[in-house]
Amino acid sequence: MKLTILGCHSASPQINTHPTSQVLEIRNHVFLIDCGEGTQVQLRKYKVRFSRIKHIFISHLHGDHYFGLVGMISTFRLLGRETELHIHAPKGIKEVITLQMKLADSWTNFPLYFHELSSKTSEMIFEDENVEVHTIPLDHRVYTNGFLFKEKPFERKLNIHKAQDAKINKAYFRKLKQGFDVENEDGELIKNDMVTSPGPKPKRYAFCSDTAYNESIVPLIKDVDAIYHESTFLEQHKDLAKPTKHSTAKEAGKIATMASVGQLILGHFSSRYDDIENFKEEASEAFQGNIILAETGKEIVI
Amino acid sequence: MKLTILGCHSASPQINTHPTSQVLEIRNHVFLIDCGEGTQVQLRKYKVRFSRIKHIFISHLHGDHYFGLVGMISTFRLLGRETELHIHAPKGIKEVITLQMKLADSWTNFPLYFHELSSKTSEMIFEDENVEVHTIPLDHRVYTNGFLFKEKPFERKLNIHKAQDAKINKAYFRKLKQGFDVENEDGELIKNDMVTSPGPKPKRYAFCSDTAYNESIVPLIKDVDAIYHESTFLEQHKDLAKPTKHSTAKEAGKIATMASVGQLILGHFSSRYDDIENFKEEASEAFQGNIILAETGKEIVI
Repeated sequence: MKLTILGCHSASPQINTHPTSQVLEIRNHVFLIDCGEGTQVQLRKYKVRFSRIKHIFISHLHGDHYFGLVGMISTFRLLGRETELHIHAPKGIKEVITLQMKLADSWTNFPLYFHELSSKTSEMIFEDENVEVHTIPLDHRVYTNGFLFKEKPFERKLNIHKAQDAKINKAYFRKLKQGFDVENEDGELIKNDMVTSPGPKPKRYAFCSDTAYNESIVPLIKDVDAIYHESTFLEQHKDLAKPTKHSTAKEAGKIATMASVGQLILGHFSSRYDDIENFKEEASEAFQGNIILAETGKEIVI
Repeated sequence: MKLTILGCHSASPQINTHPTSQVLEIRNHVFLIDCGEGTQVQLRKYKVRFSRIKHIFISHLHGDHYFGLVGMISTFRLLGRETELHIHAPKGIKEVITLQMKLADSWTNFPLYFHELSSKTSEMIFEDENVEVHTIPLDHRVYTNGFLFKEKPFERKLNIHKAQDAKINKAYFRKLKQGFDVENEDGELIKNDMVTSPGPKPKRYAFCSDTAYNESIVPLIKDVDAIYHESTFLEQHKDLAKPTKHSTAKEAGKIATMASVGQLILGHFSSRYDDIENFKEEASEAFQGNIILAETGKEIVI
């Protein structure tokens, strides 16, 4: 799993800071998470092939998380895209996008699907043989979801020599990889772990932005390998975090500790701070694990 | 009058090319013309103070001419703007912008006025003591206007010494600047041009994008000091210009010649061309006057 940060600052795009957007490469998917203004240019800059993006997940309908979406869809159209595109976003997204298409008299040639979200409890919104995506209901000023990206278990690794020595017919190899015990050519039952070893551990990544400090998400993100948790403010502006329903770095650290996450990625920094190193310091007061500061263009292997 | 080009390429924003947006400084106004995605960042880059922009003119509702508007309005709100803002744009703009505000539950604190355009003939859409703005109906795939920015006549220059020598009371100086003949203290009529000279010549700038070749605009833009005319294509792609209702550089040159304009500014270049010098060359086959290639960040004194 590889995460590329396209933008990690809150509110307005500026010359050197970009609003929220990330690319998650997971198994064969390239998922786009949030899409602030300018995201299509960031995708070009970091050489993400447009056609590989088939699913876009939008956390909420504040501009810094989706104002780049309509322009990106429009660019896909201009480039002659044929691949289908799925938008998973709060209710309302379809009306906004289609209204703008209607006014421009410009409809996509490629299939465009809107999957509008409105559930206040976690739900699975995408599944295939390799991956699941679940919502993480967050506590923000408007309806907001984080997203939990889960790899499904990998197949077990088959030791072909051992399987041949155990006289297992090739026809059963697939079953072995799936973890079943099988009979060999002499009719003996061969225990699966005699000829296979576990595949790689499936990974989980949780994206949680924007949100007030919210302990109710902990069970959903328990033991994830990495969490991106917003930290708009430092402790000195704790009084601003509450009414705007954002978190401080220390609060992000607390959530990370309660959920025993593998690594904590901080982002959604307010533009009032010149030095973001302080975010790491304050989060580390509450979380002893690995802390990464999001940075435009940074690639994070999970 | 000073024009600053913030973006002059057609269709999608890219790393080094920006969609249409210009700033026109005219008398005390700072007018924003079109507002493609990323315009707010361009304004920061070229140090245009947000609060000075009180009127935004949008030619049409294709994304490369207005997708930056909603984010800019949102940024104005976040910065605590109090100054009023007027949007002059085709019918539909109010619904698009207010729908997005509603979904974000974020309303402006400053007064925001929508002046929706739908007339198919030229109309005056702004006037104060110094400036008039008129629409220039264009021929594009959706309802589109260019804009004609006209300085009103400047006051005449008063030669105070001559006025005093002619025994004219100070109370009449304002009338003299306005061009009237006045009586002096001896009751004699003093002809205005005895004590005044003409003020600077008022200037006119016409913004014409996007449009197919359209001779019907010529009477509206006759003798303007400068015209920005779109030239999306070179002659080799003339076959593309027609169905997409765009112009070639040569066609822009023809319009400039028919209207006897002072200078022709070319822009809205398709991203398929690496070398835009050819646009100048082709336009010069049809127009012998001064031709300027628009360029991001270029300042043009009119």
